[in-house]
Amino acid sequence: MPLTLPPLVDHHCHGVLRHAPERDGFASFLTESDSPPAPGTSFFDSQLGFAVLRWCPPLLGLPAHCPPEPYLERRRELGTEEVARRLLRASGTGTYLVDTGLPGDLTGPAELAELGGGDAGVIVRLEALAERVADTSHDAAGFVEVFDHAVVASARTALGFKSVAAYRYGLGLEPDPPDSPEVHAAASRWLAERDPGGRLTDPVLLRHLLWAAVRTGLPLQLHTGFGDPDLRLDRCDPLLLTDFIRAVAPHGCPLVLLHGYPYHRNAAYLAHAFTHVYADVGLALSHTGVRAAAVLAEALELTPFGKLLYSSDAYGLPELYLVGARVFEDALTRLTEDWTSSGAWSERDATRIAGLLAADNAARLYGLVPAES
Amino acid sequence: MPLTLPPLVDHHCHGVLRHAPERDGFASFLTESDSPPAPGTSFFDSQLGFAVLRWCPPLLGLPAHCPPEPYLERRRELGTEEVARRLLRASGTGTYLVDTGLPGDLTGPAELAELGGGDAGVIVRLEALAERVADTSHDAAGFVEVFDHAVVASARTALGFKSVAAYRYGLGLEPDPPDSPEVHAAASRWLAERDPGGRLTDPVLLRHLLWAAVRTGLPLQLHTGFGDPDLRLDRCDPLLLTDFIRAVAPHGCPLVLLHGYPYHRNAAYLAHAFTHVYADVGLALSHTGVRAAAVLAEALELTPFGKLLYSSDAYGLPELYLVGARVFEDALTRLTEDWTSSGAWSERDATRIAGLLAADNAARLYGLVPAES
Amino acid sequence: MPLTLPPLVDHHCHGVLRHAPERDGFASFLTESDSPPAPGTSFFDSQLGFAVLRWCPPLLGLPAHCPPEPYLERRRELGTEEVARRLLRASGTGTYLVDTGLPGDLTGPAELAELGGGDAGVIVRLEALAERVADTSHDAAGFVEVFDHAVVASARTALGFKSVAAYRYGLGLEPDPPDSPEVHAAASRWLAERDPGGRLTDPVLLRHLLWAAVRTGLPLQLHTGFGDPDLRLDRCDPLLLTDFIRAVAPHGCPLVLLHGYPYHRNAAYLAHAFTHVYADVGLALSHTGVRAAAVLAEALELTPFGKLLYSSDAYGLPELYLVGARVFEDALTRLTEDWTSSGAWSERDATRIAGLLAADNAARLYGLVPAES
Repeated sequence: MPLTLPPLVDHHCHGVLRHAPERDGFASFLTESDSPPAPGTSFFDSQLGFAVLRWCPPLLGLPAHCPPEPYLERRRELGTEEVARRLLRASGTGTYLVDTGLPGDLTGPAELAELGGGDAGVIVRLEALAERVADTSHDAAGFVEVFDHAVVASARTALGFKSVAAYRYGLGLEPDPPDSPEVHAAASRWLAERDPGGRLTDPVLLRHLLWAAVRTGLPLQLHTGFGDPDLRLDRCDPLLLTDFIRAVAPHGCPLVLLHGYPYHRNAAYLAHAFTHVYADVGLALSHTGVRAAAVLAEALELTPFGKLLYSSDAYGLPELYLVGARVFEDALTRLTEDWTSSGAWSERDATRIAGLLAADNAARLYGLVPAES
Repeated sequence: MPLTLPPLVDHHCHGVLRHAPERDGFASFLTESDSPPAPGTSFFDSQLGFAVLRWCPPLLGLPAHCPPEPYLERRRELGTEEVARRLLRASGTGTYLVDTGLPGDLTGPAELAELGGGDAGVIVRLEALAERVADTSHDAAGFVEVFDHAVVASARTALGFKSVAAYRYGLGLEPDPPDSPEVHAAASRWLAERDPGGRLTDPVLLRHLLWAAVRTGLPLQLHTGFGDPDLRLDRCDPLLLTDFIRAVAPHGCPLVLLHGYPYHRNAAYLAHAFTHVYADVGLALSHTGVRAAAVLAEALELTPFGKLLYSSDAYGLPELYLVGARVFEDALTRLTEDWTSSGAWSERDATRIAGLLAADNAARLYGLVPAES
Repeated sequence: MPLTLPPLVDHHCHGVLRHAPERDGFASFLTESDSPPAPGTSFFDSQLGFAVLRWCPPLLGLPAHCPPEPYLERRRELGTEEVARRLLRASGTGTYLVDTGLPGDLTGPAELAELGGGDAGVIVRLEALAERVADTSHDAAGFVEVFDHAVVASARTALGFKSVAAYRYGLGLEPDPPDSPEVHAAASRWLAERDPGGRLTDPVLLRHLLWAAVRTGLPLQLHTGFGDPDLRLDRCDPLLLTDFIRAVAPHGCPLVLLHGYPYHRNAAYLAHAFTHVYADVGLALSHTGVRAAAVLAEALELTPFGKLLYSSDAYGLPELYLVGARVFEDALTRLTEDWTSSGAWSERDATRIAGLLAADNAARLYGLVPAES
């Protein structure tokens, strides 16, 4: 029985490029690496590369699994906007929650939603917000005041916050909020050393950002697990957040552990053990392609079914929204077919849980008006 | 070919509740969390919840996968004892080794075995024993003397010991036995600070407990891996026990690493590398439900087949004994069917190894008289 | 569609024993343990034991899955050399890259290649080279000079280097090359304390060895993940190498992370994120037997397909070369059949990627003349 899913809520994605990348530029979006492929190898030769060339060519009038060159040629013929429109609309996504904190010539939430024919909401990336505030701050007191105000102001319209502390320092931060003198001292040091555009990596300030978001009560997304080589993967194990999770518990702020791979079973445990913790496996499903069912199954071992969310983590290429959606649907279909055919799950439960993962959990968590199915 | 198993030896379980819990109380036994479900979610929506409603309703005259309410209603109609009797007897368990150290209105080993129609043996939880001794100790010297004596006395009738040092401190304990002055100093501090019933968390005393058990030569069960949120999961990686395992080797005491998940491949490695180390995946199979075959398969990658043991880790609800047994049998059946149909294993080996895992390994390790099959 | 593979390049193996071991000696090659099996258990009762008795007896005229005794008896009848010849030649291996640093009465690369009917190349084990140099060194200056010269000289004929720093200290070494005074001081201490044949475990010297190899530009193989109980598995997580990997990047030396299990997803991430990092899962496939497909699939989640290499890590028994090859081929066949039948991969891609993993990636990395298929 094919699974009928509601329009997806993609609770964590970014914008698409307004201008098409060249061949190497395109391929560079298929990897988390920030350096060239090894001699004699191609970024297309990966599970994500194969998934892109499985799902996307048919939507542009080409056969599945065509080589990269004709696909890129066809992309150029159709034009960036038409490609984006076709791929986004085919993804079945009803709502895009967009982390607006990435640099580059990317569509904003409204523009993305218009292209994709859905709704959009904003997720504020804390570090990007702090860096923008720092660019115009004269001193620590000003920085802290303006930043704290900006978080409160953002909370009136945004649907949540996101932290990339994993990239900037790792997740082994002290769990508690730093006190005001600590924050001011750290801000003074940072502003004094900083060139415009400079990144925030100070652990005291990263904690201040997290706690500013916690106090708003909006869902706080935390990058965990793999990502680009800026991070040290062993410092991104979500279990390093355990004491922070405990400290946040009384504040009623939901924490959403993004990705988690290859520590997604650890993230699942945290979502199992703590009322206010949620999880997704967004980035992991796209990058593992045909293996997405295996990864999703691992995440579903301990994560309560009401606490796992769908996301594409797509960025730059509209292909990544489509692939994110297709590998998720394909994985979920394969798992539920397997589990219902053996009698382990009922058909009714399978349909209900699929709806939770695809849309309803995110709608409940972020307070969205349910999409029409 | 359906797998024919001998009566199971459940080498690690607890008692069942003498009085039935209410709805929320029942659901709270389906999770390791100690806090309420997240708003809009239910503990029944989990792999364990689905496994309970798959296997148990038919034994109470209801269809599989019925909703929670009629199931709980039917439970009330039948009464706690009748439900326990039906579910325990359907589990195919021949022998229950009961960790008697949990609080609550639970059946003891004899009562459990009578309900379930099997044999029982006692596993002594070291920390609970030490806390009972502490409740009546006047000073450190008295505590140490009475505790040490109690361990030796227990070893005459018990089949093994169990430690929950993982919960109390983590597994990164110093490997060697503390010397007598250290133990007395730690006991003095603990007794001076302690209220009656207070938990033992001091690492020196936890090590003393472990080594007291090691010296008896009986199998020593060690909690590793996930459990309730008391623990920090990253401090429960069984690899943290490596130096302790090396220190114990010359003493001839078998160590049994319980659960291990999500570090069960690490536990398997230790059982592979060290003669005196054994493993189980008890708690992990019940909680992962339909995924139990995947988890069991991972445990069977490196664990020698003569060193993996079955357990349910069931506690409170008779449903958990039944589900523990069913998911284990179902997982083992699926794996051996897959492995024999491809020619990787022979049918004869599959039957033999299934018997080892289900009963014979535990019977050999704990010195049980083999059950009649 | 059966997969047609080119002759395998086994980029990491050792020699075979020139004289057959007795029963217990044979079984001891089926485990990484260095101590006896637990009472009542056998090393044959393991995934590797079952794989040996699946694949090897038919090549010696016995049925698959025969018991150990007739197999060992038949082995004796045929003689060590005939058994080696039959098993090696049936493995389909075209090229053996042999780590020559293990002690024992083992065939060298040319002898192995002659028995197996293939080509051979040499991989120099750094620690064994340093220990041989130390045996004839009078002082630190002499040791360092002769060792450094030996590395440069080896690089003229060897195809790569290998380090077992994981066993000797763990992978959490300081990342940068030690300076000359540090190296000399460490060498002085080591030579002064050392008995002939003594092992190199000093972290400063281990780093010096690694950097001496890095400077040659040849591929450097690094043991990561499980192995015999000398190592502490948690100190062999390849992620501990992250800062070393970053430090090596500008030097253009390819790093090959061997085995990795159970951290093979971490190794895959490093191969994904860093241009100069490659991976294999050699030892893990043999030891997990019927589970090799699952382990290989995990490694293929993030490892770029151009960067995963085949190896057997076989040592001592010719059975291990055959089993290494068979479980790899069987795993690859099962995965590609599954992935092509669902439409996720094309047949053409499956054949091409299988060739990369089996031979072409290694040929490219080590600069081999492609084998005739």
